[in-house]
Amino acid sequence: MDLNQFIRVVPDFPKPGISFKDITPLLLDAQAREVCLKQLVAPLKDLRATKVVGVEARGFFFGMAIARELGIGFVPVRKPGKLPFETVAQSYDLEYGTDTLEIHSDAIKPGDRVILHDDVLATGGTAAASCELIQKLGGKVVACSFLMELSFLNGHEKLSGQTVHRVLSY
Amino acid sequence: MDLNQFIRVVPDFPKPGISFKDITPLLLDAQAREVCLKQLVAPLKDLRATKVVGVEARGFFFGMAIARELGIGFVPVRKPGKLPFETVAQSYDLEYGTDTLEIHSDAIKPGDRVILHDDVLATGGTAAASCELIQKLGGKVVACSFLMELSFLNGHEKLSGQTVHRVLSY
Repeated sequence: MDLNQFIRVVPDFPKPGISFKDITPLLLDAQAREVCLKQLVAPLKDLRATKVVGVEARGFFFGMAIARELGIGFVPVRKPGKLPFETVAQSYDLEYGTDTLEIHSDAIKPGDRVILHDDVLATGGTAAASCELIQKLGGKVVACSFLMELSFLNGHEKLSGQTVHRVLSY
Repeated sequence: MDLNQFIRVVPDFPKPGISFKDITPLLLDAQAREVCLKQLVAPLKDLRATKVVGVEARGFFFGMAIARELGIGFVPVRKPGKLPFETVAQSYDLEYGTDTLEIHSDAIKPGDRVILHDDVLATGGTAAASCELIQKLGGKVVACSFLMELSFLNGHEKLSGQTVHRVLSY
């Protein structure tokens, strides 16, 4: 099965010149979704991971599914002000300005072995900030898992030292 | 297993006087999470549903899991500007002002039998607007599924005519 068939390219979204990779057709097809999940989980099985961290919002879809397949806890990383309990925060640079992500400060314990998951690895800013959050709380990032990588954006470079897995590459 | 143990009450969030029900401890406990999912899915099994619609962002966690358990498609309902393809929109009243939700216009087809899922049924505004979106596209809402209901807010009333299921009630 060619999973690329289930990624819809939407031109000029969210702004002119950007070809957005829409994963909603993949979420809609139960069979393709399971094939994709199997491919996501395969390289993560033997890492003795204790938690999966998924990044708001599209990292929640397969992040939760990966955690279920591995039988381990799921932790959301969210935009500021969304998590109700005590949090730690990490800011990161955007093309113009900065953005911030938060995690509950009791969600990761020292010694946790954590898989980071998001749908897309683009410039790597979000993923690197999420790794920082995990490490701030004493967790070890044992793998970074993505549905797809936009390889021309070199997000890999911001994740040097991490093991990166992705199912699709553009 | 008492699932209430995995819901953390956070006082004065997001504003003074509100006791927020935090579901992240439930996401973190793999065993409780599966027990909860089983209870969510039980009343939905024999509805011949064809799709699950989950509401951004906390409706994505168990919404996707319900769709997987039933072997059917998952469709996200999102805040404006998040979905890249052609959408239909529905506004609804808040305590002060209005808010809007969107769905991809090709995500639901006439004849689809749809389960709506969100984490919390509060005033019912979000859920009612999501039902409108499904119906605008020709789908039939066969059940509204929630992790919990805040019954003192009477959200049920805005969903009159719909079958409402929830695992926990406060």
